[in-house]
Amino acid sequence: MTSASQINPAERILMGPGPSSVPHRVLRAMSAPTLGHLDPQYLAIMDETCEMLRQIFRTKNALTFPVSGTGMAGMECIATNLLEPGDEAIVGVNGVFGTRMKDVMERCGAKVHAMEQTWGESFTLTQISGALEANPKAKVLGIVHAETSTGALQSLEGVGELCKKKGVLLVVDAVTSLGGHELRVDDWGIDAIYSGTQKCLSCPPGLSPVSFGPKALEVMDARKTKVQSWYLDVSMLRKYYTGGGGGGRVYHHTAPINMTYALREALAAVLEEGLDARIERHRVLHLRLRAGLEKLGLRYVPSKSLHTLNCIHAPEGKDEALIRHRLLEEYGIEIGAGLGPMAGKALRIGLMGHSASVRNVDLVLAALAELLK
Amino acid sequence: MTSASQINPAERILMGPGPSSVPHRVLRAMSAPTLGHLDPQYLAIMDETCEMLRQIFRTKNALTFPVSGTGMAGMECIATNLLEPGDEAIVGVNGVFGTRMKDVMERCGAKVHAMEQTWGESFTLTQISGALEANPKAKVLGIVHAETSTGALQSLEGVGELCKKKGVLLVVDAVTSLGGHELRVDDWGIDAIYSGTQKCLSCPPGLSPVSFGPKALEVMDARKTKVQSWYLDVSMLRKYYTGGGGGGRVYHHTAPINMTYALREALAAVLEEGLDARIERHRVLHLRLRAGLEKLGLRYVPSKSLHTLNCIHAPEGKDEALIRHRLLEEYGIEIGAGLGPMAGKALRIGLMGHSASVRNVDLVLAALAELLK
Repeated sequence: MTSASQINPAERILMGPGPSSVPHRVLRAMSAPTLGHLDPQYLAIMDETCEMLRQIFRTKNALTFPVSGTGMAGMECIATNLLEPGDEAIVGVNGVFGTRMKDVMERCGAKVHAMEQTWGESFTLTQISGALEANPKAKVLGIVHAETSTGALQSLEGVGELCKKKGVLLVVDAVTSLGGHELRVDDWGIDAIYSGTQKCLSCPPGLSPVSFGPKALEVMDARKTKVQSWYLDVSMLRKYYTGGGGGGRVYHHTAPINMTYALREALAAVLEEGLDARIERHRVLHLRLRAGLEKLGLRYVPSKSLHTLNCIHAPEGKDEALIRHRLLEEYGIEIGAGLGPMAGKALRIGLMGHSASVRNVDLVLAALAELLK
Repeated sequence: MTSASQINPAERILMGPGPSSVPHRVLRAMSAPTLGHLDPQYLAIMDETCEMLRQIFRTKNALTFPVSGTGMAGMECIATNLLEPGDEAIVGVNGVFGTRMKDVMERCGAKVHAMEQTWGESFTLTQISGALEANPKAKVLGIVHAETSTGALQSLEGVGELCKKKGVLLVVDAVTSLGGHELRVDDWGIDAIYSGTQKCLSCPPGLSPVSFGPKALEVMDARKTKVQSWYLDVSMLRKYYTGGGGGGRVYHHTAPINMTYALREALAAVLEEGLDARIERHRVLHLRLRAGLEKLGLRYVPSKSLHTLNCIHAPEGKDEALIRHRLLEEYGIEIGAGLGPMAGKALRIGLMGHSASVRNVDLVLAALAELLK
């Protein structure tokens, strides 16, 4: 496939749990000439990127920027900055990413109370309220909006109010929902949120958009200990990204310049389509795919499925690995395997961003019909 | 400069402390179609990238890979994995990056002994030996090969032997030397090393190549505590990058796919030129620039200058910020300001990778001659 000096990756249709297919305009923007990270032109591009992120997160939070790492770096950025050793937190655990959030927060020295739910199910307001009552010392409640491992959608309406009443910060994983599902950071009272670029934004992986609200800022300003990660320390990052803290912009680390170009272009594409129209497109195409899959006798794992990721039980009596292999080799379509305890038992079909099209839905259904014969 | 949907960054000549100018072939490779991070084609590209990194680090270390973040993420990856709370370390502090390494290691809970030297000077073997004698509990000695803030080159020959005698791990910052200066990881007994892509490799920023030797692996395998960073935890990363630890490749986080394409192409360019020839090019062009700068009456800050970064005292009686501004605006040339305590007092002219050419050296000298009239 490759020679010493050139790569020629196949033109896959990416319908796994991410990355999604990247539009040509984004790849083209990414290959624009590299600027220095303190060049006024670059700072202007970054400012525009942050402003577009605010629109897509539906927030006025000044501290909204892309962390220089993939989605998990965003999770770690929020955990390390909000938590100090000895703090307590509650994390909703109903899949791989809730499990990871608990692990990440524990590594910050926090005592983490797991709020558990069957994988594939979501949390009710009653259950969340109960967890808040049971853990009165909790500083943070962490919850996954779109659990990529099970395909379950978590409703967030009302959660912010419950947290606010208890003085608890609401932290949300929106890696697989930003730009594909309804998400209202300010209206829903979310205090800190992270996402990835390679899912519903259809930008290559490499950045993790985050946003911190005023209460999160207060908590960070009141820290007694240094953030354990220098790379992710928001007290320094904010001086670079927003000039916040006085004294104007201060160099921290070298930002991933060309990735920022790509993200800016991907966000421009989202805003040109219109956020509402884009969310509706994901809904309609999910219903189209769902109808087709059910017609093939395939069943969904979660009770309340994401539009952006369709997690189905592996077809009985068939080799799920072979199905994925043949989709990749014969059709150039990537779909995902089950993750964690669901390895070998599930298939995950992503409908994210640029990959979410009538063309792709009908193709993957035709291909599956052929392979399941 | 920008419209809502398109960026058109200026074609700068990047002669600051990094990023350096990126060759078109690297930008083109970066914009190849995005693959999934578990696609066999992508894994092959990553394997090739790691193999080329081994050649350029001059190491046989199996655990050699690009961390998914910029250079400082590599520093943090090594510190968090090698150190546990209560450990002791020695760090050479003679500039901004040594100061940072001390900070990063302290955030890991280590007690860090600063081995200090005047900024612009380097450490002698006698001084290093003395620091090792004085701190018998040290587990790690950290030192910066190419101190980007002062332009000083640190000789590393013999340092590994001193560390080995004391059973201390040698950790090296090679952000501004990899691919531009002589660097022999195995021959010099370096146990762990990190670099960046955007300096002498002339790839956009976004990845941090690291390499861990056998003794570093032993120390990591013997850890009593979890690595405080999930994102940078080598015990998990190695399962993805090398399939190490048994059980084949395991998904950890979504790697920055297109950045890996770019790095692979940048490394191919290094190997096509030949590592020795490239290092010699940096040396020759440094001498050419140095002769020209001294003819203009400009003086170097460090006693022993890097070839890749030329740190000079700001010209007396001139506004150094205006010189940088005019170079950028009138010539499209970026050079760097002084960093930290040297802000306003120094200029930093990078000659790294693709930016290190006769054309650029003679141009920047001509431009400076004009601006210093």
